[in-house]
Amino acid sequence: MQRVVSFGEIMLRLSTPEFKRFVQAESFDVTYGGAEANVVSSLAGFGVDSFFVTVLPENDIGTAAVGHLRRFGIRTDFVKRKEGRMGVYFLESGASQRPSKVIYDRAQSAIATSGPELFDWDSILDGADWFHFTGITPALSDNLAEAVAEALETAKKKGVKVSCDLNYRKLLWSRDKARSVMTPLMENVDVLFVNEEDAEKVFGIKAKAVDIDKAEVSAAGYEYVARELHERFNFELVAITLRGSHSASVNSWSGVVFDGEKLYESRKYKINIVDRVGGGDAFAAGVIYSMVNDRNMQEAVDFAVACSALKHSIPGDFNPVTLGEVEALRKSAGSGRIVR
Amino acid sequence: MQRVVSFGEIMLRLSTPEFKRFVQAESFDVTYGGAEANVVSSLAGFGVDSFFVTVLPENDIGTAAVGHLRRFGIRTDFVKRKEGRMGVYFLESGASQRPSKVIYDRAQSAIATSGPELFDWDSILDGADWFHFTGITPALSDNLAEAVAEALETAKKKGVKVSCDLNYRKLLWSRDKARSVMTPLMENVDVLFVNEEDAEKVFGIKAKAVDIDKAEVSAAGYEYVARELHERFNFELVAITLRGSHSASVNSWSGVVFDGEKLYESRKYKINIVDRVGGGDAFAAGVIYSMVNDRNMQEAVDFAVACSALKHSIPGDFNPVTLGEVEALRKSAGSGRIVR
Amino acid sequence: MQRVVSFGEIMLRLSTPEFKRFVQAESFDVTYGGAEANVVSSLAGFGVDSFFVTVLPENDIGTAAVGHLRRFGIRTDFVKRKEGRMGVYFLESGASQRPSKVIYDRAQSAIATSGPELFDWDSILDGADWFHFTGITPALSDNLAEAVAEALETAKKKGVKVSCDLNYRKLLWSRDKARSVMTPLMENVDVLFVNEEDAEKVFGIKAKAVDIDKAEVSAAGYEYVARELHERFNFELVAITLRGSHSASVNSWSGVVFDGEKLYESRKYKINIVDRVGGGDAFAAGVIYSMVNDRNMQEAVDFAVACSALKHSIPGDFNPVTLGEVEALRKSAGSGRIVR
Amino acid sequence: MQRVVSFGEIMLRLSTPEFKRFVQAESFDVTYGGAEANVVSSLAGFGVDSFFVTVLPENDIGTAAVGHLRRFGIRTDFVKRKEGRMGVYFLESGASQRPSKVIYDRAQSAIATSGPELFDWDSILDGADWFHFTGITPALSDNLAEAVAEALETAKKKGVKVSCDLNYRKLLWSRDKARSVMTPLMENVDVLFVNEEDAEKVFGIKAKAVDIDKAEVSAAGYEYVARELHERFNFELVAITLRGSHSASVNSWSGVVFDGEKLYESRKYKINIVDRVGGGDAFAAGVIYSMVNDRNMQEAVDFAVACSALKHSIPGDFNPVTLGEVEALRKSAGSGRIVR
Amino acid sequence: MQRVVSFGEIMLRLSTPEFKRFVQAESFDVTYGGAEANVVSSLAGFGVDSFFVTVLPENDIGTAAVGHLRRFGIRTDFVKRKEGRMGVYFLESGASQRPSKVIYDRAQSAIATSGPELFDWDSILDGADWFHFTGITPALSDNLAEAVAEALETAKKKGVKVSCDLNYRKLLWSRDKARSVMTPLMENVDVLFVNEEDAEKVFGIKAKAVDIDKAEVSAAGYEYVARELHERFNFELVAITLRGSHSASVNSWSGVVFDGEKLYESRKYKINIVDRVGGGDAFAAGVIYSMVNDRNMQEAVDFAVACSALKHSIPGDFNPVTLGEVEALRKSAGSGRIVR
Amino acid sequence: MQRVVSFGEIMLRLSTPEFKRFVQAESFDVTYGGAEANVVSSLAGFGVDSFFVTVLPENDIGTAAVGHLRRFGIRTDFVKRKEGRMGVYFLESGASQRPSKVIYDRAQSAIATSGPELFDWDSILDGADWFHFTGITPALSDNLAEAVAEALETAKKKGVKVSCDLNYRKLLWSRDKARSVMTPLMENVDVLFVNEEDAEKVFGIKAKAVDIDKAEVSAAGYEYVARELHERFNFELVAITLRGSHSASVNSWSGVVFDGEKLYESRKYKINIVDRVGGGDAFAAGVIYSMVNDRNMQEAVDFAVACSALKHSIPGDFNPVTLGEVEALRKSAGSGRIVR
Repeated sequence: MQRVVSFGEIMLRLSTPEFKRFVQAESFDVTYGGAEANVVSSLAGFGVDSFFVTVLPENDIGTAAVGHLRRFGIRTDFVKRKEGRMGVYFLESGASQRPSKVIYDRAQSAIATSGPELFDWDSILDGADWFHFTGITPALSDNLAEAVAEALETAKKKGVKVSCDLNYRKLLWSRDKARSVMTPLMENVDVLFVNEEDAEKVFGIKAKAVDIDKAEVSAAGYEYVARELHERFNFELVAITLRGSHSASVNSWSGVVFDGEKLYESRKYKINIVDRVGGGDAFAAGVIYSMVNDRNMQEAVDFAVACSALKHSIPGDFNPVTLGEVEALRKSAGSGRIVR
Repeated sequence: MQRVVSFGEIMLRLSTPEFKRFVQAESFDVTYGGAEANVVSSLAGFGVDSFFVTVLPENDIGTAAVGHLRRFGIRTDFVKRKEGRMGVYFLESGASQRPSKVIYDRAQSAIATSGPELFDWDSILDGADWFHFTGITPALSDNLAEAVAEALETAKKKGVKVSCDLNYRKLLWSRDKARSVMTPLMENVDVLFVNEEDAEKVFGIKAKAVDIDKAEVSAAGYEYVARELHERFNFELVAITLRGSHSASVNSWSGVVFDGEKLYESRKYKINIVDRVGGGDAFAAGVIYSMVNDRNMQEAVDFAVACSALKHSIPGDFNPVTLGEVEALRKSAGSGRIVR
Repeated sequence: MQRVVSFGEIMLRLSTPEFKRFVQAESFDVTYGGAEANVVSSLAGFGVDSFFVTVLPENDIGTAAVGHLRRFGIRTDFVKRKEGRMGVYFLESGASQRPSKVIYDRAQSAIATSGPELFDWDSILDGADWFHFTGITPALSDNLAEAVAEALETAKKKGVKVSCDLNYRKLLWSRDKARSVMTPLMENVDVLFVNEEDAEKVFGIKAKAVDIDKAEVSAAGYEYVARELHERFNFELVAITLRGSHSASVNSWSGVVFDGEKLYESRKYKINIVDRVGGGDAFAAGVIYSMVNDRNMQEAVDFAVACSALKHSIPGDFNPVTLGEVEALRKSAGSGRIVR
Repeated sequence: MQRVVSFGEIMLRLSTPEFKRFVQAESFDVTYGGAEANVVSSLAGFGVDSFFVTVLPENDIGTAAVGHLRRFGIRTDFVKRKEGRMGVYFLESGASQRPSKVIYDRAQSAIATSGPELFDWDSILDGADWFHFTGITPALSDNLAEAVAEALETAKKKGVKVSCDLNYRKLLWSRDKARSVMTPLMENVDVLFVNEEDAEKVFGIKAKAVDIDKAEVSAAGYEYVARELHERFNFELVAITLRGSHSASVNSWSGVVFDGEKLYESRKYKINIVDRVGGGDAFAAGVIYSMVNDRNMQEAVDFAVACSALKHSIPGDFNPVTLGEVEALRKSAGSGRIVR
Repeated sequence: MQRVVSFGEIMLRLSTPEFKRFVQAESFDVTYGGAEANVVSSLAGFGVDSFFVTVLPENDIGTAAVGHLRRFGIRTDFVKRKEGRMGVYFLESGASQRPSKVIYDRAQSAIATSGPELFDWDSILDGADWFHFTGITPALSDNLAEAVAEALETAKKKGVKVSCDLNYRKLLWSRDKARSVMTPLMENVDVLFVNEEDAEKVFGIKAKAVDIDKAEVSAAGYEYVARELHERFNFELVAITLRGSHSASVNSWSGVVFDGEKLYESRKYKINIVDRVGGGDAFAAGVIYSMVNDRNMQEAVDFAVACSALKHSIPGDFNPVTLGEVEALRKSAGSGRIVR
Repeated sequence: MQRVVSFGEIMLRLSTPEFKRFVQAESFDVTYGGAEANVVSSLAGFGVDSFFVTVLPENDIGTAAVGHLRRFGIRTDFVKRKEGRMGVYFLESGASQRPSKVIYDRAQSAIATSGPELFDWDSILDGADWFHFTGITPALSDNLAEAVAEALETAKKKGVKVSCDLNYRKLLWSRDKARSVMTPLMENVDVLFVNEEDAEKVFGIKAKAVDIDKAEVSAAGYEYVARELHERFNFELVAITLRGSHSASVNSWSGVVFDGEKLYESRKYKINIVDRVGGGDAFAAGVIYSMVNDRNMQEAVDFAVACSALKHSIPGDFNPVTLGEVEALRKSAGSGRIVR
């Protein structure tokens, strides 16, 4: 069994039920999520030995988050507990022309106030095949940027492959800060995930003739981005998700991967959205799973997009699907007939 | 008032709320349903004197099922109670590319362990105009296959029309067993309902040039199936539902009936699915209602499809709609404007 | 800050959850709404000083309605309380081919049994910029028709602009009664709102070549209606909403305004409906806001349609959106990307 | 099987969940209830052939009420449907020192506006063993008072026993009106149910040395009431419930019956209240069941109090308990150990 | 109408439903509360013109809090909005031997990071009769301690009476810090509220022979505390709540007030707890209402305890009760009989 | 860290919400539980390395059960998956005089149809300190009785202490069968748990002068039982829970342990029940924890009763409490004051 480790913040997610607005809500649905934990939620479902490394407060909310990770098969051996608060994010589910809305309340969380010495990467990465992080973690604090740098170095030393989802968050840092911190980290990254906007915001690489406010985005426009990133950082693989946003209820969804030579395009799905948070993370999980299992690139991108198409139909950040379910979708027309 | 009798198993249905997966559910919505009970749920709403014949356990879950039948106007005079368990089916509601999933837990139910002597068909069918069953009932046990055979013979003797929905369930029996049991029963069947797949699985009659994994299925391809069934068993009517499965959220839906001479095609609806379970049963109810009331075939198939289109918008297996509502849809464009 | 006053009945709204039919419901969602209160719910969200004038029963249900108005920023200084009952409306949320269904139970409500002397229009309209009412209020009782007439006269004296939404309700009065009561009121109306059907029903002015049972309605067909209304009553503006009803789940939605010279057409939205009640009221609010703020007509109609498109995504009659949210939609492609 | 008929109004009951106040509620729990329907809900559970006679509006709320009656085994053969509204009652569940609060909105209901000619008592009472009504029905309208009078005369002619629960409702009529209407009806009543207050309010017969605002009421104080009623009207039986109200959460509960000679006192229960509405009706059902089955008076009063003690633990007006459950409580110490 | 102003923090309250533990919760009930806002929630219900002064973040959660205040009749004219976060408190509802548990997450809230210059006390207190604050506000930051000091000085200048609830929170400051900040503020305080523990913790004044871990606390033991506080700070009134904690489900509840001469004891209630948060605040509201309306001291303490007994039966921090309801309880035995 | 292993069946638990009866329920709360899993749920919360050994079906319901175990910190390394069904138990929560009701539907479950060879006790018990089982497991099938016997032998060989909760279930086997199977197993049992009834039913040892239908049971009456069991089987410890059942809402709860010499009685709690299922299991966990940690007997029984008193306040079978919480209760008066 392969072993994948991811590192980052998991937050308490509080979302309004039944399309209510924040100002109408009398209850919040409670779950837990974060870009890096979301990735391992898919992988655990596929049977990969999946570890999530984080820091959580020593209170019952922190304990509940640990329970949530375990419930979905994620190993929590390297979750640290300390004084502090849990990062929170509020989610108002959009519909039709009304976009979903996220309010972050994550400052001063237990992990954001942790020093790099808390993480013993030598132990954590022992026996690991893959390490995944996103641009959010170094954005949380300089300490965590340092922790990530140390993790990458350890990974390289141990021959652990590394993937990074660029995931630029403008509320956490400026583009300049992001570029200066992320650029040196790229040296130790093998696989980079970017979405429609982040490559431009962090590295100034803009898709050609693509207007993301248009409902549909074309895969071709992104070949330039992938090629440019590949050339600049010599990534083994660049993987890009393409979201066509018709409305908050209906999206198209596909992806491409570029291995330095060829751009592989996935099938495109028309999606009726139940919960789109974590869609990109599920895509990353699909690529990582394919890489760890030496699948060919076309299968990889089709598997990854199928995996993340399913995510859009599942409430919460996590993606509790099985390998069989993703493969069934990848191999079929996705007609959604009842499975008995 | 006409009297229709249907016979089969009604199960406790446990479904996950709000598109949750089984592994996420902290509650199940509770209702009761089964192919044969679902048919009479529509008929009772139309004002037909509708009886459901079954066996239920002598416990509170069985009592709740009886209450559920009565609540929707179904007569339970011939419901037997005995020791045993209630059949259960778990339903995970799908969305978009994620199909709905059914887990059956129906073995050893009170009805499946009942002998044929429990049913006094002479009394049950006294005064009845129509008897309906499906291929599920004889699949549950040899005893029930015998009970069905006895019911059909009694029906013929009393001049009660008989309809059967083929409803092949691969978890209950093999294709061979199904064919050998169902074939002799067909002699006493006047109206046969089949869907896209069952005619092939049970009788080896395959629609021409139809790939049900494609989103759309054409009515024409099914004329061959209907004609073949008609010729083989001399049915008065063969009725077929046509589901075009774009995804678990959006389907097209239509039907055809073949009276031995002509294929009548219904209007086709584009459906935003709330709950598709029982859609075929609502179609059967619409045809039975039309036959009992001597409607012409074009009206019959349009009425049946309108009836079942409405079912897709209603949670639960049952179809609590009125005659007026179905007629309003059949006669209109189905624009869904508010009724005040 | 501008001050807008609206006058009418607010009802207790009891709606079935999760697409349940009335006969299935074990709970009702509770909120409060009515055409005139709905209009000020949008305006209060835009920062307009918004007053709602009504009469409510002196019991806890009436108190809850007052609390509901205040919660969404509506001023209740001129809400009267007296003995009597609260008007109720039951709402069954439709989906797909099943239309939403409204059962009114509003007879003998506290407001319907109130005399015109209860309303001191001189105080109420003091400092107001705009007065809004709908055809529902004079339909409730002759007393209220008189109260509306007095309000309009006071408004004219004080230079307060007046808008009216024709809102014909066949359960409340006949077409003849409506015409005879509404016609003299039109003299003091500056802006008239009508939907696809009401102009014909009340004033006998029929859109050309428009069949509202068709899914789509063309703006052009309504120029005749607007022009005719303008000529007959010399309105400053006639505003018309155009709903294309594909089903109870999917509508198209747009609007036109006619200023006596030109017909301005809005963008058209394809809407996945969460709750369409109050859509027209949100459109009216958007026009009123634009007029009070001297926007040009093209902006006005685009703003109004954006405002009401958002309403369709929000549960309840009220439309708690901000100016910024409406402007963001008006200026963008409405792609529904997450706002972080 | 015995046949019992009861006659009265059933209302839509809307109650706040989880001890919320009306002004806090965002949803109402929906059920249906009324004093006379509540009585037959117990009897149907005991296996008695139980009919409820009423008038309901011809809309979906009325249909839902019919379904509710049937669900709990009550026969609705004599339920009439006509234009009109459904009576509504709002219930705020109290706790501790905060009493439950009822807001009635029942004026002009379908039954209240029905004439006496709607009820064919000859058919309705054909084969009946018992007829039950309460003081609420004649209070709803003079027409209904007449209908009750006709029912009683028919009952007497046919040898059907008659019971009445005095149930004085001050919002429906004055004490004087109640006395003048109820007094002649008493001639045809065999069994009278009264609670702590009603005998005084309607007939001016006051319990001796009893202060109902005190937490506990003594059975002895009521012997005078029972004896006096017996003497005045020559009832076969007078049955009185005794509620000791410590708070809205904890009550004591017992009852007495007087057969003209002896006062039989029941065991007294200390009750943790889930829902006390319908407690008295469940007691009446217990007495009626006992009388129809010729039980002795001590058993009767113990059975009736056990039946109604259980009601206090069940949400809703109805009392879905079985004969076995009531007998188990009557014969045991009521220790509440789990039944497996 | 009297005018009362209170000042402090209102937090987002997230509580587990149905006695679930934090680690079990899949949803949180959402409301808003804080000691000072809770006080005015009662007063607004009594018809007092009640203002709450606070600072809230400029996001939708802040807007929802404003809506919540308004919904319950509290005036928000002096609520400031600025960048920042909303203070949060998590509440796990206890039962029986399991205590309720509060997790605070209030650091760095919008109000805690506000400077004293934000509050224009001259305007705020213009026309006010009473100003209320608690020991929590100065504990939040030195800036707020200064704001309170300024408020008290302005109040004294304007002849506005001042009350303070000592409300010591050990998580916010040490006993020493509390004493040094609170002591000078006491000079301008007219009425002091303390509970069983705070007088000792802040001022070192310990009740005689009282062990709060015992289920019952005697009023007599607190006369010493009241007298001592009176002597030290010359308060017009010292008011103390006495909670006898049998378990998390059952408490006894009473209060005393001391006017410098006499200790007035209230009736004692046995309480079945629905939600005890805000109980002390409701008591304070009852005393303030009585003082503003010049009631005698015995009535005052009885009114205050009745008011707060009701609070224990209502979910949420707020106390939406009417004057009539409190008076009905004060004057009755609190038997909890249904109010129709 | 100590390691405890328990072995048995975990079932899907479906319970009616809010005191609804089965016949009223429209939803079931979903959780998972069983006597042996419940014990380790407490131990995992105390930080003990806790393993649960069972067999679950290879479907999503089985996967959900595994997730549930993990969520509460229980290790599932030795959970087997195979074809079959999940045992189900339906729970109707009682209140006041209405007892809770359990309907079992557990026949033919995956574990009940498993052979003893499925369990490799040598691996499972490797490094374990304690093994726990109950009388339910050998009652499920002869195969499982054999598996238990093998487990006990392995435990003895490895020096693992063994506890057994007698837990007689009359629906699973007769008293005679129970006695003949359980008696030889007792040889390898060190600690026996019994409740009020089981010692008599299985071993014919009856408490002296104890009537469990009485509300209160005295500890003294059970000394005879403990002594007799000790003498017959030479247990290291016999532990007995004592439930005084006032009603389904209020119980008293205490326990005794007998070490062969002395009977140690715990404090007695008066309990307001939220969910009493699993109360005895939580007591067993408390004793096991105390034994593994060499606590003295008085502390052990007080700890165990405190642990299980808390369980009664928590919904579900499991007991997610911490060591600190149990110790806080054991050392305090259990007054239930809020913990901030």
